[in-house]
Amino acid sequence: MLSVNQIWHDVKQIRNTAPLVHNITNYVVMNTTANALLSIGASPVMAHAVEEVEDMTSIAGALVINIGTLSPRWIDAMSLAMKTAKQRGIPIVFDPVGAGATKYRTNTCNNLLSETAPSIIRGNASEIMSLLDANIATRGVDSSHSADSAVDAAKELAKSFNCVVSVSGEVDLITGGDEIVKINNGHPMMPKVTGLGCTATAITGAFAAVNKSLSNAAANAMAVMGICGEIAAEKSNGTGTLQLNMLDAFYNLNEEHISEYLK
Amino acid sequence: MLSVNQIWHDVKQIRNTAPLVHNITNYVVMNTTANALLSIGASPVMAHAVEEVEDMTSIAGALVINIGTLSPRWIDAMSLAMKTAKQRGIPIVFDPVGAGATKYRTNTCNNLLSETAPSIIRGNASEIMSLLDANIATRGVDSSHSADSAVDAAKELAKSFNCVVSVSGEVDLITGGDEIVKINNGHPMMPKVTGLGCTATAITGAFAAVNKSLSNAAANAMAVMGICGEIAAEKSNGTGTLQLNMLDAFYNLNEEHISEYLK
Amino acid sequence: MLSVNQIWHDVKQIRNTAPLVHNITNYVVMNTTANALLSIGASPVMAHAVEEVEDMTSIAGALVINIGTLSPRWIDAMSLAMKTAKQRGIPIVFDPVGAGATKYRTNTCNNLLSETAPSIIRGNASEIMSLLDANIATRGVDSSHSADSAVDAAKELAKSFNCVVSVSGEVDLITGGDEIVKINNGHPMMPKVTGLGCTATAITGAFAAVNKSLSNAAANAMAVMGICGEIAAEKSNGTGTLQLNMLDAFYNLNEEHISEYLK
Repeated sequence: MLSVNQIWHDVKQIRNTAPLVHNITNYVVMNTTANALLSIGASPVMAHAVEEVEDMTSIAGALVINIGTLSPRWIDAMSLAMKTAKQRGIPIVFDPVGAGATKYRTNTCNNLLSETAPSIIRGNASEIMSLLDANIATRGVDSSHSADSAVDAAKELAKSFNCVVSVSGEVDLITGGDEIVKINNGHPMMPKVTGLGCTATAITGAFAAVNKSLSNAAANAMAVMGICGEIAAEKSNGTGTLQLNMLDAFYNLNEEHISEYLK
Repeated sequence: MLSVNQIWHDVKQIRNTAPLVHNITNYVVMNTTANALLSIGASPVMAHAVEEVEDMTSIAGALVINIGTLSPRWIDAMSLAMKTAKQRGIPIVFDPVGAGATKYRTNTCNNLLSETAPSIIRGNASEIMSLLDANIATRGVDSSHSADSAVDAAKELAKSFNCVVSVSGEVDLITGGDEIVKINNGHPMMPKVTGLGCTATAITGAFAAVNKSLSNAAANAMAVMGICGEIAAEKSNGTGTLQLNMLDAFYNLNEEHISEYLK
Repeated sequence: MLSVNQIWHDVKQIRNTAPLVHNITNYVVMNTTANALLSIGASPVMAHAVEEVEDMTSIAGALVINIGTLSPRWIDAMSLAMKTAKQRGIPIVFDPVGAGATKYRTNTCNNLLSETAPSIIRGNASEIMSLLDANIATRGVDSSHSADSAVDAAKELAKSFNCVVSVSGEVDLITGGDEIVKINNGHPMMPKVTGLGCTATAITGAFAAVNKSLSNAAANAMAVMGICGEIAAEKSNGTGTLQLNMLDAFYNLNEEHISEYLK
């Protein structure tokens, strides 16, 4: 399902149309994900006030919801933004950051998802598994499980919400409930940079804004993440420079890079 | 009105006096603008609690208000801080981030500005125009208009509030209501880094803290932004490294750079 | 008290056990401190909702409290998290950012500390002194005093709360109330990067999670901060690149570096 042509087509579409991606996300990664979206060619906006999220979501090409530093008022805004997006046919990408680490996170995810089914759920293995099984524990915001161990949970979750599930890990998995697409790109240093999971979610939003096939959008986004991570790692001396070089890689990404690096 | 001597004089003043710049700004750029202020030689502080903004503003050399991720309690704090600054003669720089994108942003700006006229309003063309015409739409936080198209709005706004208006764009415009100063420095990659508009606003705060001529302060700040952007772009491979190299450029800025790069 | 062996032992322990460090910290530095903790080998999590801090603190190896951008609800969460950590024997590192700059900050610190004595208090000289003397003024979040002038205050504070006090400055001081350990590493460019004080606090949390001697943990953390700052400064052209090169230095730190740089 992964094709150089299709990935590159999406990237060009993002650059040509600069889709507005409305993010209600966590404090830790806001700068990183805004820069990633700008670097790939999208137009990010962060807005979380209940007073304005309907207006902001309504003009967006995609809505990205990320519960990384949640609190009650923000959850209200997420709920409202998700309903607005659903009514208007705007794709919703949902990242259950830290689901499984506290009951509050797991319950919040379950409540939001039961109100409004998202288009794509994107998380690490522990987070995805914890949405189905309250006994799965996430260690803070880092996964305690390999992506492979989340295959069944991802499929079941995708079927439950009639959505696409995208699981990041050494190998990334994308499923719409039946077949699994695997993505083998990426670099071991990536989990040591904060917010690259959240960046994957934001970038997935940009792809969902330009590609009507949600599973292709999710897969192409993860391929671009992995490829840019590899390109960046080659130029980096550690996790600090990796973060910045990834933005450069998004900005400079061309068809040859995709063709050369896609596994 | 732009002079190498005057720009350099202001930079030296900032470095020698390290003015405290009190920022009530958005979550996305806090780190970036704090680092920019430190790099140029100022002393940034971020404080947004209604319980402390009067105390914090009172010891500051300038107040920077930026509505990028606004919510009701933050607006209360902005209102109180602006009143405090006004009473004490502390310059206020106001950035209407995303005005025109949602009614909430436009209304908040209008309310805050009608309560307390700022010293300098600094935004992109769409934001500036939307403060005068509710029909102007801003696309999230990115301008849909060129700075040139905002000339009339900038002059009218400056006259309404008896303040200086600073509009960023390919060419930056600064006006006190009558004459227009244009700044031709800058680099096309700059809008692809999040928060460089907000950084321009913060840096304008530092200049306003040391230069009693608000129009000169605004113009000198934008010249330094553009010059440092050009210096940084020469050393950068993309938007990621540009962000960091700009901080280096602020830190290393000397009279020769200004003389060489000022257009 | 400082030994290459012991510092390196702690670093290896952090890398081998990846302790979960729960941070309730300020908006400005969240990304920076999360990246620093990941780079040194720990697992950071940021969570501030009253609804979840008990759960999150309970699974952590250390709790880091930093009041840099405080507001009432966050203070409630800090209070609850500190009580939870105390009950469970989880070390608490407390950073009184900007204490002395506003009454609200000073009072908040005094209230939180009187409720729950922390394991380590880590701040700059003005902040430490202001906790004992309400007449000491901090200039925003930057110290107006040298670390040396805080020796008596640090000792008294350590005795009052039966804790360790770690004061950053040109020379860092660590005391449990009687003897003083001095750390001479560091670089003059470090105070020009926002959040390196907060990073020192977060890193101290990681060391406290693996070393039962709180004074050794505090001293080893500050030594690593200073050493990595020096390594990073050698490769940096200014404050922007310093921030990223420090993360690389944490990530690449080995025994030879410690041995070569420790003063």
